Amino acid sequence: MSAVSYRLFSYFRSSASYRVRIALHWKGIAFDTVSVHLLEDGGQQYAADYVARNPMSEVPTLEVRDPSGAVVGRVAQSVAILEYLEDVHPTPPLLPADPLVRAQVRQLVEVVNSSIHPIQNLKVMRKLTADFGTTRERNFGWAAYWIGRGFEGLERLLTTRAGHRSVGDDVTLADVALVPQVFNARRFGVDMSRFPIISRVSAALETEPAFQAARPEAQPDAPAAT
Amino acid sequence: MSAVSYRLFSYFRSSASYRVRIALHWKGIAFDTVSVHLLEDGGQQYAADYVARNPMSEVPTLEVRDPSGAVVGRVAQSVAILEYLEDVHPTPPLLPADPLVRAQVRQLVEVVNSSIHPIQNLKVMRKLTADFGTTRERNFGWAAYWIGRGFEGLERLLTTRAGHRSVGDDVTLADVALVPQVFNARRFGVDMSRFPIISRVSAALETEPAFQAARPEAQPDAPAAT
Repeated sequence: MSAVSYRLFSYFRSSASYRVRIALHWKGIAFDTVSVHLLEDGGQQYAADYVARNPMSEVPTLEVRDPSGAVVGRVAQSVAILEYLEDVHPTPPLLPADPLVRAQVRQLVEVVNSSIHPIQNLKVMRKLTADFGTTRERNFGWAAYWIGRGFEGLERLLTTRAGHRSVGDDVTLADVALVPQVFNARRFGVDMSRFPIISRVSAALETEPAFQAARPEAQPDAPAAT
Repeated sequence: MSAVSYRLFSYFRSSASYRVRIALHWKGIAFDTVSVHLLEDGGQQYAADYVARNPMSEVPTLEVRDPSGAVVGRVAQSVAILEYLEDVHPTPPLLPADPLVRAQVRQLVEVVNSSIHPIQNLKVMRKLTADFGTTRERNFGWAAYWIGRGFEGLERLLTTRAGHRSVGDDVTLADVALVPQVFNARRFGVDMSRFPIISRVSAALETEPAFQAARPEAQPDAPAAT
């Protein structure tokens, strides 16, 4: 696989894109980034050339290219991309070897990926505004409600699973999913003092170079700091 | 692994539970079912003994037991359970061998699991009613909107991927995710004539014995036909 190259279609603030950036950096996989700005130009994810790459109009999308630059495959959906990277770049691993522990890691990934994040997504908030006339403040409250409710369950799961990391002491895909969701929690005003284990695990992860490099603020499409 | 037994905590109409039932039947894995009724008793998923099993108060949960009946592990989140079953019962496979094709299967699974289903979930509709006073009819319209929007992307993905099944001609996890979402689409009144490939693939799958056995109407907690 050394001959292929990767191109990631990403938006700096998208937590699904953030997950994939962490895994790429953690595994030391080279990639270039193409920004898909979800707000500019009426949403660049709806542009015809992007829809041809990803008919769901979502980020991220990973393109796999051969040495001539020809696209040999495209994968979208962050979890599918993470599993693909694990399949083709298994070292360093982000999934443990024991099947039941793997399953518990994947459970935590899906708590974020399917139970929390989709309901606080930009397109849902836009629909709330279209249907019910919600303000930005009320949309932030909606997001904070779902993140807080999900974090209550996640915090309880971590009481029996976490060590230094979400599951034991090694970095796994559960950590890759956790940090971007904590970023969203802060953004939408969730009181993180209610979640001491999530906060402790995330704070330690955020100091790791791979997680630092993947941060929204470190991306080429992030606005300049003010 | 032959000495372990499985207990599935399931709700007949839950499409996440439905996915896991299909995979168990497809792989010929014996299991018993415990019903967790999401509407009765104020929602049995909130009962203390269930929350101890699944702090997210969601179905399904799979319990793995040793020959003495002791619980050796619990896995929740349908995708984590499906991947676990694939890890420990790889035959017959529900994921193809080629990494890029596996990734495309997982992408389709996540289109359903994270982009469509969570937004049309019972708890979201209840929150709409609590916050905005929505009627049951309006909640069904909300669900139909998100399923229809997601199916537009899914239908386009299937134009290049589907053969007899969602990806090529073999049954995969993409099919396991598809059929329960089509069930939901019908329930919420989505016009399926807009999605000819989804309709064709799902109709063929629905005739398979494993898919038949997993149907909501075939479950012990389904109400008697009227």
